[in-house]
Amino acid sequence: MTSQTVVQNSAFELEQVLVVIERADAIASSMTLDPLLDRMLALLIEIAGGEAGTLYLVDDDEIVFQVVHGDPASQHLVGMRLPINIGLVGATIRAAQPLWIEDINADPRWDRRLGEANSLQLRSLLSLPLLLEEQVVGVIQIFNPQRSEPRLLKLLGNRMAAEVEKARLLKKSQQRESRLSALVEIVGHIGSTLDRKTLLNLIIDYARILLDAEASSLFLTEPETGDLILQHSTGHLHERVQSVRLAKGRGIAGYVAETGETICVGDVKRDQRHDGSVDQMTGFDTRSILAVPLRTRCITFGRERAQSEEHLIGCIEVLNKRDGRFDDDDKLLLQTLARQAATVLEIADLYADVNELFLDVIQALTAAIDAKDPYTEGHSKRVSEFAVAIAEELELEPSFIHHLRIGAILHDVGKIGISDGVLKKPGRLTDDEFGEMKSHPEIGERILGHIRMLQTELPVIIQHHERLDGSGYPYGLAKGQISLGGRIVAVADAFDAMTSDRPYRRGLPIEEAFRRLRAGADTEFDAVCVEALWQALNRGRVRPQRLRDDIGDHRIINDATPFRTPLTPSA
Amino acid sequence: MTSQTVVQNSAFELEQVLVVIERADAIASSMTLDPLLDRMLALLIEIAGGEAGTLYLVDDDEIVFQVVHGDPASQHLVGMRLPINIGLVGATIRAAQPLWIEDINADPRWDRRLGEANSLQLRSLLSLPLLLEEQVVGVIQIFNPQRSEPRLLKLLGNRMAAEVEKARLLKKSQQRESRLSALVEIVGHIGSTLDRKTLLNLIIDYARILLDAEASSLFLTEPETGDLILQHSTGHLHERVQSVRLAKGRGIAGYVAETGETICVGDVKRDQRHDGSVDQMTGFDTRSILAVPLRTRCITFGRERAQSEEHLIGCIEVLNKRDGRFDDDDKLLLQTLARQAATVLEIADLYADVNELFLDVIQALTAAIDAKDPYTEGHSKRVSEFAVAIAEELELEPSFIHHLRIGAILHDVGKIGISDGVLKKPGRLTDDEFGEMKSHPEIGERILGHIRMLQTELPVIIQHHERLDGSGYPYGLAKGQISLGGRIVAVADAFDAMTSDRPYRRGLPIEEAFRRLRAGADTEFDAVCVEALWQALNRGRVRPQRLRDDIGDHRIINDATPFRTPLTPSA
Repeated sequence: MTSQTVVQNSAFELEQVLVVIERADAIASSMTLDPLLDRMLALLIEIAGGEAGTLYLVDDDEIVFQVVHGDPASQHLVGMRLPINIGLVGATIRAAQPLWIEDINADPRWDRRLGEANSLQLRSLLSLPLLLEEQVVGVIQIFNPQRSEPRLLKLLGNRMAAEVEKARLLKKSQQRESRLSALVEIVGHIGSTLDRKTLLNLIIDYARILLDAEASSLFLTEPETGDLILQHSTGHLHERVQSVRLAKGRGIAGYVAETGETICVGDVKRDQRHDGSVDQMTGFDTRSILAVPLRTRCITFGRERAQSEEHLIGCIEVLNKRDGRFDDDDKLLLQTLARQAATVLEIADLYADVNELFLDVIQALTAAIDAKDPYTEGHSKRVSEFAVAIAEELELEPSFIHHLRIGAILHDVGKIGISDGVLKKPGRLTDDEFGEMKSHPEIGERILGHIRMLQTELPVIIQHHERLDGSGYPYGLAKGQISLGGRIVAVADAFDAMTSDRPYRRGLPIEEAFRRLRAGADTEFDAVCVEALWQALNRGRVRPQRLRDDIGDHRIINDATPFRTPLTPSA
Repeated sequence: MTSQTVVQNSAFELEQVLVVIERADAIASSMTLDPLLDRMLALLIEIAGGEAGTLYLVDDDEIVFQVVHGDPASQHLVGMRLPINIGLVGATIRAAQPLWIEDINADPRWDRRLGEANSLQLRSLLSLPLLLEEQVVGVIQIFNPQRSEPRLLKLLGNRMAAEVEKARLLKKSQQRESRLSALVEIVGHIGSTLDRKTLLNLIIDYARILLDAEASSLFLTEPETGDLILQHSTGHLHERVQSVRLAKGRGIAGYVAETGETICVGDVKRDQRHDGSVDQMTGFDTRSILAVPLRTRCITFGRERAQSEEHLIGCIEVLNKRDGRFDDDDKLLLQTLARQAATVLEIADLYADVNELFLDVIQALTAAIDAKDPYTEGHSKRVSEFAVAIAEELELEPSFIHHLRIGAILHDVGKIGISDGVLKKPGRLTDDEFGEMKSHPEIGERILGHIRMLQTELPVIIQHHERLDGSGYPYGLAKGQISLGGRIVAVADAFDAMTSDRPYRRGLPIEEAFRRLRAGADTEFDAVCVEALWQALNRGRVRPQRLRDDIGDHRIINDATPFRTPLTPSA
């Protein structure tokens, strides 16, 4: 039935052999795997005088159906992965030498899965192993061959094995190169982001793209509990899976985040650590997982802050590799991305922390200054909220708003230099006292004016009592001379003064305050800013002091006192 | 003399040819360039029955002497780069077909530089071009051959050309891979640094290592002038070349920093843009330069700060590539490193800026609080300097010192809540007044206690009037209950109070102040902190108020007033 001995039948002369070798050389000069395989198979079929042929390559414990010639009906098999022991291909791999089958249909090893689709009358088969240093790297099958040409076919088969290996090596190296090149870009991109949310989105998207996975998730460890909180994921059926919490150490993600190990699971159904609850929630079918820890590097600060230690902060998972399995290259790549991502997250947090610290401290200190006069308590904070709301309504640049917020918080900082007698005086101020009060913008400038990083904020501090018609103080600047920040804070400041309770009156209702602001539009106030504040209030973006729960009516001393709004000296 | 026609002399039979092909296949299965060339040359010499042989590869407009066989005396030529038109090698490249020379010594094209070192009696030569798709990629010379075997040698020569090309491709790809892999590590490493000086050192070292250059320099553009300032360089004879300034647009670095172009100069002597002044200064001999711009990426901040624009900030140069020339791969690699470096520099600056802003603002605000009482002017700043000096003498952790500085600046912030009458009172305080004054640590805690990022600093604010024996305020904490920060600031605070001028007395001399501090050691003050301050003062690290130029004697009201040091209420 089968014969291990190939029929000896050498019809080739020296000249023909040299021509064949030259053709093989020409084919092999291509370093691209697919055309190389294609043309090599064609040459071997021609030498053997066969009617059709197929080529398989070994890939770990599988074979890949790579090329078919002379049989268009089998074309759809190309790319299919099969068990390594299948049919006569498997037999050739085990034998590690050529098989000669007179009638494949009579051979029990012949596997219908490979043959049924074949539309030709297949009878005989020459099945050649491609040997590289005694390892079978592939199999060529030539159907209905007319010649065996054992010496030449073996020579060419081995040549092919070597060329396949070279092309694979190069392809692998080039793939690594292009993925590393992508990784460099990615690392550069995420490294230029200090916004946590943008950063999380980028990391998770890039992880999925780089690893060619169907989905990806990022978990961060909650410091208080050790639980893992899902931050973001992509590729799931539901674009965002929200409020997923894994108890400490739970699931593969929990294991990775706790131990710092990288876990690669080919089939999650067989891994007990896998927690299927997210899949149940989303309907996503997780098959394979590569999970790496998010471990920050040591971060080097300036001289004074020195280093922060390396520590685990969570885990990144990629799910279901689209083509093949997650391998060692994938592991290394994702580990590198994760390490970099963790560091950048840490730096973004550090940056956010010091910004938060700065804002909190200036807010606390200006609140303490406000608190010297119980009737301006919370004033600086509210003015900064109103000013930011105006700027947002006007759709001003984020960086402008950033500086405006700081400037507005600090706008009354000069009151630190006003004596208690004037600052806390419950009744009306004398001219001298008002004169002292009016010096607070300049005192503010004197206190903060030398600070390099605060130059953008200074105009707000100096100009928040200027009026468009030039009747304000300290400099009597006119319309074109007052900065936008100054105009915005002037409106925010006046509005808070009008609507906040005072010793001698309750705060005005919003409508009455706006009647007055509008009456002063274009003489005192910038009309655009006034209307922007109106919009912001109507949208519920901000609220005046009198409508806030946190500072209740208990502060009102004399509700019945008739009031006038002393616009300028009050703020 | 010479003959373009190779003598036809084919002695090989089919079997021999197949054996040769099999041997060539075995040799070619190696993908490492050097052994491949070595073994291939040996095979070709054997086939031609030659006595010796050499192999050259074409590299751009040069040839590289790659292998020599049968002539140990020429071994030292290996690796030498020669002009592409040299001798019979050049003639073979031009002819693009084999040359057969009966007597090389009679051939005017024979170049002594290649032959003199040859110890053999060289007469005849078969010079074979290695052809890949009609391009000559190398030349093999076989000396004193006995057979010509034109068909087989041509076949093997071309095979060799193809294999060389494949091995080169793979080598190139693997080199790129390993350099990209190094780049990923580098980018990760510099990305975890927020300290400008460390960062500049890292960038410049990595640039030199990655590009395999003899030296490297980093220039930053001075915003005010546009001049380029050399920040750091490595590899020069003088390890650090200091205070180098290139006028705007001057030199190759200036050109690159201004235009944003990458410049690669193979021979700087021929480039008019090159500024030789640094070489003159250092004695370094710059031959080739690769200079790329430092261009920051767009940086994404939080919602409020949004993006910063891309802009040029300087230039990185690498000088004298050790092996060969700077090529396109080098350009890309250095551009990527430079882009990333620029971004990280920008982020480090942003981080430093916001830290500076925070410190400046709290210093300005606490200075304003101090200034309410002219006799405590500058107090908070000095206390923070003394405290930091103590901590540095004690070699405490940089991060501890960072928080200590902030805490010390803010230690008296609660005085914002003390009424002017008490705060500014020139004489002694009544018990009630002293009672109010003593509330300032708690007021400070109330003002700042809610701030998440300030928790480390709070103990300093609350505890700086506690005493080791439990007799301090506000809580009467005892030795083991007072934090190190609190103990340090208590000493710094008392020392400044003693040595600063007061309405009723001049500041004490240092010696007298220390007599009193030491008298209170272990009851009031931590003796270790007292001695650390003594050390710091002796080393000139800090100075008390009375010895400072900026706050002179003009503040002293009554120099003759007898004094006692009211330790607690004064600070």
